[in-house]
Amino acid sequence: MIYLDNAATTQPSAEVLKKAEKFNGECFFNPSALYRGGLDNNKEISEAREFILKSLGADAKEFECVFTSCGSESDNQAIFSCAKRGIAVTTAGEHAAVHRSFAELKNRGVETRFVSLEKNGAVNTRELLEIVAGGNVRFVSVIHVNNETGAVNDVNFLADAVKKIDKKIVFHSDGVQAYGKLPFRLSPNIDLYSVSAHKINALKGTGALIKRKNLALTPLIYGGGQEYGLRSGTENVFGIKAFEYAAQEKYENLETYCEKVRGLNERMRNALDGELFDFISDEKCSPYILSLSAKGAKGEVVMHMLEEFGVIVGNGSACSSKNRFSRVIEACGRKNDDGVIRISFNPYLTEFEVLFAAEKLNECAAKLAKIIKK
Amino acid sequence: MIYLDNAATTQPSAEVLKKAEKFNGECFFNPSALYRGGLDNNKEISEAREFILKSLGADAKEFECVFTSCGSESDNQAIFSCAKRGIAVTTAGEHAAVHRSFAELKNRGVETRFVSLEKNGAVNTRELLEIVAGGNVRFVSVIHVNNETGAVNDVNFLADAVKKIDKKIVFHSDGVQAYGKLPFRLSPNIDLYSVSAHKINALKGTGALIKRKNLALTPLIYGGGQEYGLRSGTENVFGIKAFEYAAQEKYENLETYCEKVRGLNERMRNALDGELFDFISDEKCSPYILSLSAKGAKGEVVMHMLEEFGVIVGNGSACSSKNRFSRVIEACGRKNDDGVIRISFNPYLTEFEVLFAAEKLNECAAKLAKIIKK
Repeated sequence: MIYLDNAATTQPSAEVLKKAEKFNGECFFNPSALYRGGLDNNKEISEAREFILKSLGADAKEFECVFTSCGSESDNQAIFSCAKRGIAVTTAGEHAAVHRSFAELKNRGVETRFVSLEKNGAVNTRELLEIVAGGNVRFVSVIHVNNETGAVNDVNFLADAVKKIDKKIVFHSDGVQAYGKLPFRLSPNIDLYSVSAHKINALKGTGALIKRKNLALTPLIYGGGQEYGLRSGTENVFGIKAFEYAAQEKYENLETYCEKVRGLNERMRNALDGELFDFISDEKCSPYILSLSAKGAKGEVVMHMLEEFGVIVGNGSACSSKNRFSRVIEACGRKNDDGVIRISFNPYLTEFEVLFAAEKLNECAAKLAKIIKK
Repeated sequence: MIYLDNAATTQPSAEVLKKAEKFNGECFFNPSALYRGGLDNNKEISEAREFILKSLGADAKEFECVFTSCGSESDNQAIFSCAKRGIAVTTAGEHAAVHRSFAELKNRGVETRFVSLEKNGAVNTRELLEIVAGGNVRFVSVIHVNNETGAVNDVNFLADAVKKIDKKIVFHSDGVQAYGKLPFRLSPNIDLYSVSAHKINALKGTGALIKRKNLALTPLIYGGGQEYGLRSGTENVFGIKAFEYAAQEKYENLETYCEKVRGLNERMRNALDGELFDFISDEKCSPYILSLSAKGAKGEVVMHMLEEFGVIVGNGSACSSKNRFSRVIEACGRKNDDGVIRISFNPYLTEFEVLFAAEKLNECAAKLAKIIKK
């Protein structure tokens, strides 16, 4: 199998699982318990927090790391905590966790605005800043790396620009597709940043919300007061430590991996038949995601044909797979019957695998093109 | 080590981990993906749902199972979905996840009432039904098994009685300390029932909310629309399958385990020195929990002394361990400086271990009593 849907989820690393397994074994204790095993686990969680902050270049005096159950939870908590009045602004290129939360904000009487996208899926910066300059904006959320096209928004620049207009605005970014993949230092002007474990070869069921320390948040989940009182529920020590270990491996190799993936992405691009495919992602996008359309074919059909050869690709966001059409691709100015396919890489793939996948992509698209012509 | 804090968390079963490990290995796919691996995982989750419902004797035509990240999340979703107006009633013996959510309800303008407890921690049934009969009650939440004393509330009876007074009232029960431990068939009058995986030798980070199908719930987490649109976020397949497998093992042996634990509990009771200890839990409580007070000593001191002998006990709820005093024990009519210790069993303990622990409990308490007398 050649797995090219790493933006949907990744296979947990065997080394990470091995290293974390003791937290399901002899170190299974509840981190809130006051005996040694509990206190030790509490310390282990603190170390994980420190590493996550450090990996983002976030000063532990200014930021704190709240562990959650997933990136979606992090996004939801950021939004529902901080967008309670005034205007909340986001982009047309957000993950469903932000997009649907904004729809709910509207139900709750908050005015919401969706900024349009460039052709590659990046936010229209001018439009965003114009809206913010219009006044009464209290909250801005901009995805760091678009999960469908890989477009990179310069969230540090945007946060700085937004704060220059009004420093009381809370700035959030969904960093799920950026974290552990792209070199990035969190600007002090970003108040909230969401990350997820299962996109970087750790486990489903763990995420984190990085927050500015002096920003007041509302819990989504009340109870035992874990995570600075912001997220109750027994801490998922195994998931949290696996997240830390996976992040360590990624950040130790960040530039190398990024360059390798950039190379794989280029090989794929160059090997694909330009007569059959149209690229949605451009060179400015994250190398980890390559979105393209098989002209005239249906994305799902191509996906299933490739599967027969053991090549696994996605068709848009897995989290929106039940929707026939992608609102993000539409917001990029494309028709949705364009046969959109999302190829997403990991640094452990070989060039051979990528070229094999490209060959099969060409074969399948050619076969479909013939059928369509008839 | 003799671990007697199984109400705080349990060690994941090696067999369960072994059986579920493929979901972190070759079956790591995102259950929302439309290729084979994704569809298969989606089916695996459906099977887990079916088993959880079946284990509670809940008809799949009437109930559905929504997987969450923990018991606390389940409680919060139940409460914030259904207690939006009128009076919300709960007991003084709830877990922090319910208790703190009710405090938040009050902030949101919902009238809340806390029903007093009997001496063993069970709810005062007469008082509860009187409040409900007073009118305008929209939501009732009663813990099934009290997590500090083990007191069992007959939630089926209470739900029936509450619905007889007003069938529009939504009835929720936190079943975290009951599920997989006590024989129980969910009454159709219980609208919502919270369960947790890590209390039954599965993993931290997984819970479920059993709900009546035709009851409308509000998501806590919006996004990709997983879990019938009620709980977004990539499904934690590994955690969910481990939950199913652990539940299977528990329900295959439910009566045997329950009887065995009852025996262990009795051995412990009989072996403890009545001059040194006072029992808070009585014979009507769940055999899985034995709460007692070391007369005149501090619970935490006893706990740390026992730890030196490798005997691990709890002092009240781990989720409330940061609070010096337990509000639940106080609501049982006890002073909190009574040296409260919570012993909580699992069916894999041996009689020898339990008797060794009892001996050490006697020794430690006797030593402390001597010091106090001086």
